[in-house]
Amino acid sequence: MESHGDIRTSALKNPVDLAEYLFRRIHELGVRGVHGVPGDYNLVALDYIPKVGLNWVGNCNELNAGYAADGYARVKGVGAIVTTFGVGELSIVNAQAGAYSEFVPVIHIVGTPSTISQRDGMLLHHTLGNGDFNVFANMFSQISVAVARLNDPYEAAAQVDYVLQQCMIKGRPVYITLPTDMVQKKVEGERLKTPIDVRIPKNNPDVEDYVVGVILKYLHAAKNPTILVDACAIRHGVLDEVHELVEKTKLPTFVAPMGKGAVDETLPNYGGVGDASLQGIKEAVESSDLVLSIGAIKSDFNTSGFSYQISQLSTIDFHSTFIKVKYSEYPGIHMKGVLRKVVSCIDLGKINVQPTPPVSNTIPEAERTSRDQTITQAWLWPRLGQWLEADDVGEFPKNVIAISQVLWGSIGYTVGAAQGAALAAKELGNRRVILFIGDGSFQLTCQEVSTMIRHGLKPVIFVLCNDGYTIERLIHGMNASYNDIQPWHYKDLIPAFGGSPANSKTFQIRTRNELDNLLGDKEFSAAKYLQFVELYTPKRDAPAALKLVAERAAETNEKVE
Amino acid sequence: MESHGDIRTSALKNPVDLAEYLFRRIHELGVRGVHGVPGDYNLVALDYIPKVGLNWVGNCNELNAGYAADGYARVKGVGAIVTTFGVGELSIVNAQAGAYSEFVPVIHIVGTPSTISQRDGMLLHHTLGNGDFNVFANMFSQISVAVARLNDPYEAAAQVDYVLQQCMIKGRPVYITLPTDMVQKKVEGERLKTPIDVRIPKNNPDVEDYVVGVILKYLHAAKNPTILVDACAIRHGVLDEVHELVEKTKLPTFVAPMGKGAVDETLPNYGGVGDASLQGIKEAVESSDLVLSIGAIKSDFNTSGFSYQISQLSTIDFHSTFIKVKYSEYPGIHMKGVLRKVVSCIDLGKINVQPTPPVSNTIPEAERTSRDQTITQAWLWPRLGQWLEADDVGEFPKNVIAISQVLWGSIGYTVGAAQGAALAAKELGNRRVILFIGDGSFQLTCQEVSTMIRHGLKPVIFVLCNDGYTIERLIHGMNASYNDIQPWHYKDLIPAFGGSPANSKTFQIRTRNELDNLLGDKEFSAAKYLQFVELYTPKRDAPAALKLVAERAAETNEKVE
Ligand SMILES: Cc1ncc(C[n+]2csc(CCOP(=O)(O)OP(=O)(O)O)c2C)c(N)n1
Ligand SMILES: Cc1ncc(C[n+]2csc(CCOP(=O)(O)OP(=O)(O)O)c2C)c(N)n1
Ligand SMILES: [Mg+2]
Ligand SMILES: [Mg+2]
Repeated sequence: MESHGDIRTSALKNPVDLAEYLFRRIHELGVRGVHGVPGDYNLVALDYIPKVGLNWVGNCNELNAGYAADGYARVKGVGAIVTTFGVGELSIVNAQAGAYSEFVPVIHIVGTPSTISQRDGMLLHHTLGNGDFNVFANMFSQISVAVARLNDPYEAAAQVDYVLQQCMIKGRPVYITLPTDMVQKKVEGERLKTPIDVRIPKNNPDVEDYVVGVILKYLHAAKNPTILVDACAIRHGVLDEVHELVEKTKLPTFVAPMGKGAVDETLPNYGGVGDASLQGIKEAVESSDLVLSIGAIKSDFNTSGFSYQISQLSTIDFHSTFIKVKYSEYPGIHMKGVLRKVVSCIDLGKINVQPTPPVSNTIPEAERTSRDQTITQAWLWPRLGQWLEADDVGEFPKNVIAISQVLWGSIGYTVGAAQGAALAAKELGNRRVILFIGDGSFQLTCQEVSTMIRHGLKPVIFVLCNDGYTIERLIHGMNASYNDIQPWHYKDLIPAFGGSPANSKTFQIRTRNELDNLLGDKEFSAAKYLQFVELYTPKRDAPAALKLVAERAAETNEKVE
Repeated sequence: MESHGDIRTSALKNPVDLAEYLFRRIHELGVRGVHGVPGDYNLVALDYIPKVGLNWVGNCNELNAGYAADGYARVKGVGAIVTTFGVGELSIVNAQAGAYSEFVPVIHIVGTPSTISQRDGMLLHHTLGNGDFNVFANMFSQISVAVARLNDPYEAAAQVDYVLQQCMIKGRPVYITLPTDMVQKKVEGERLKTPIDVRIPKNNPDVEDYVVGVILKYLHAAKNPTILVDACAIRHGVLDEVHELVEKTKLPTFVAPMGKGAVDETLPNYGGVGDASLQGIKEAVESSDLVLSIGAIKSDFNTSGFSYQISQLSTIDFHSTFIKVKYSEYPGIHMKGVLRKVVSCIDLGKINVQPTPPVSNTIPEAERTSRDQTITQAWLWPRLGQWLEADDVGEFPKNVIAISQVLWGSIGYTVGAAQGAALAAKELGNRRVILFIGDGSFQLTCQEVSTMIRHGLKPVIFVLCNDGYTIERLIHGMNASYNDIQPWHYKDLIPAFGGSPANSKTFQIRTRNELDNLLGDKEFSAAKYLQFVELYTPKRDAPAALKLVAERAAETNEKVE
């Protein structure tokens, strides 16, 4: 549709349809796969996706699509999802709230009724029937770092650039509405010659120097400093600085549960994931007289129910919006510049390096010598750890992506996220995605495995079948029927979802020997197609760390004054 | 947990735990099955459900649970759902917005962190990580007619009574938060002796008499009055009055698409569903000089894309909050009292009754004589209509529940809603539930069929397999890949979800003969267990009414100024 004779259009140097402008900007940020579900208010906009070199995923439902865009963003740095007005967008409130809570930049575009219908308050489908077209945007404004309602062709291009910049710099979701009659409105294409500036704004150099001075003073004086890396280090793009710090100082380095994957696990001074069930790590961190805590999210589940006892007096917190040294706060300072300067100014001669406790995937003695074939959690996780590390399964790429949602903790999330991550991995061409999910969680979002099959993705999926919601049993209601689920034949879903021997393979594992054989199978480890493992573990069994978290949650919930 | 020594408790005549109080009130309103998904913030509260004689459904995920509670409410008058803070509740925003938009009373109870954790702004799982515990309640306040945050034992019982009353009287969703430390706080159980007053408040008798007088004046003078019944007649509980009016006056009576099921279809003056593709009905309604429009929702899809031409000058609108006679509005008047008085004061001698055009499930000539075995939509719907009406399948109950979501129109809704409706039907012991759903829609929420199997529900499910989103193809993108879906083997999901020959049966139907045979089979029609029919129709084929709606939607979306 051409807007011939539109005076404004003729004033543009290089008129480009608004939808094209938007999707070209999204492409510029690095997105290649766009998640979502079509709807009549977004159909015309979707035509621009292939036009600008993007791929449409087409999920089974919106919530799963939201999870997928989040998983994709965790791998590629940013994700995008398109939904339709009302019914579509409101289905992903949970997904976007999760992305907001865990600092994941997801661009959410909603196709809405035309500006004309909105102005006239028309009683359209997918409305609340009251002529109010602002309700949904109001909701999303509470879980987005920026909102753009593209109702005006004069403003639209600048609005797009602004929200996308905020999304990237703040590392959190943004919300964009695109009315049907705006899709083909012309905007200035010349703007596209200048990429959106997504660099982190520079710190005030005086303040930065001052903070670095303070940090170095304490670091040089500390007897046994340690480094603790968490999720925001990943999200706010300081992993290079972190690695320089870790490699240069050789200080004992741990990661919080949400930070898993942030630090190269093959480094000699990598000490493992600090979950409070591992006594060695807890001690090492707690006895440290200076913890360089980088990008921490100090939520209950990320600190194993607040069970760490790290004094703020022995902590330096590095964040994207402030630095906190003991009790002194330095607002408006981003950790990136600070970390870079710390690394370059550090006096290695003055750093006291204590030995790092070894990480190991050893199976506990009692489990190793047991002749019971039951797959207990105490046996399972170190066994899987060995598999992921083993050299003799050579073909299996080491570069494994770890995705979990510890703070937000929405179950079912990982199925969608694995779809998004697997797509991102395919685009990057160099990684494998392995999903471990509980049977209860899998039931929420099972159909997104169909999307993986549809796009030829090749994750390895382990569904841990333990007859229901075990973690909840540990918190409350061990035998309550509300913690039961309908027993499924999980692996039979794969062919039902259109899986064939050419693109997928399924397994049922009930004993340790069976799992040993599977993990030892080179073809399995090569992960050439989607593989789905139905794995049986006892109903009331859980890893030690989970038991601890469950206990603490029950206590917090029960507490009365 | 007993609160011995609590001064306040000893002042209560009959101390009852708050959660018990809440669920006993819900039971009192007629709810028996409570939908939802457990979470650590609601587990202790769930223990009260069996205690007060309610049944926990336990859905696969929250959105489906929300749909189910809505479907249940449409049959039983009110539904209830329990979710957990953040992750759970935010997953049902779409479902509750739909219930709000379509006037369905659904009680939503959210288990939240304790008042202590909230006061201290603790960084708990399922929070946004910013200490703000109000965000989600703010969202729901926009799609609820009342909100109660049960943070104070002194207020809680009164708050519960108030929100439940609002839910019933206004016929729309309410939102209740129940913190973990409030579950067992004592409230006054004596209150339970007085049921919540959910009667519609009486109209001002002078105004009511005046309005009735005006209505009768026009009705007695009209040459060919008709009655048009819509969804709000069902929702606001005036079906008895409607039937008295319809039976007493014998006026031609039609229902809008959203009102399907409101009027006894066996009445001789029932004229059918007014969808604009049926020329006869459109003419009858448009040529009427006085349309008694009862409980109308004049949305685009409910009026076949606004294609009716009914002048407001020949309309009397009956609503729950006002009556509108031509252009005169009478606010604050409920239709119930007005309709009752109209029925009793009407002078039948003065009513001009024109003949009602016959409704028929005749298969169009061309389709009937065709030897093509393809199941076209033009052949399918009248054929199914014959089946639903036929006497020779005697065992099949006539009392079929019609559930659709025309205004909100969230696809996938009907799977959840059918689960809820089937549960309600089971409780009522006298109805069958038949679900017709598209293949694309089914993919969003397929797993809720598992919940039907789990609870021994017996719906008949037809999945119309036409290779994707046909209605969208008709709107835009006939061959666009975004309107394609992953091909599934739909019926194989039933055994994968735990269906067995004892509780379920599946069918694959590709030809007219196959469908004729199935519909003629007495065992099939007896619906003694869950039956699942995979039914193939052509990719680009759609019922005439749908084509019309699609055309209008495309026009509205494309319109530019
Ligand atoms: C969307 C959502 N709903 C409900 C919950 C509450 N919840 C937390 S863990 C859990 C059970 C998970 O069960 P499963 O996946 O089988 O894991 P298991 O503990 O059995 O290993 C539930 C229901 C949640 N976190 N997110
Ligand atoms: C939750 C939600 N997401 C997206 C849409 C947009 N939408 C409307 S109809 C439709 C396609 C439905 O396809 P199907 O169920 O196969 O029915 P068909 O038209 O093929 O008979 C879609 C995606 C919607 N209405 N609701
Ligand atoms: Mg489980
Ligand atoms: Mg279809």
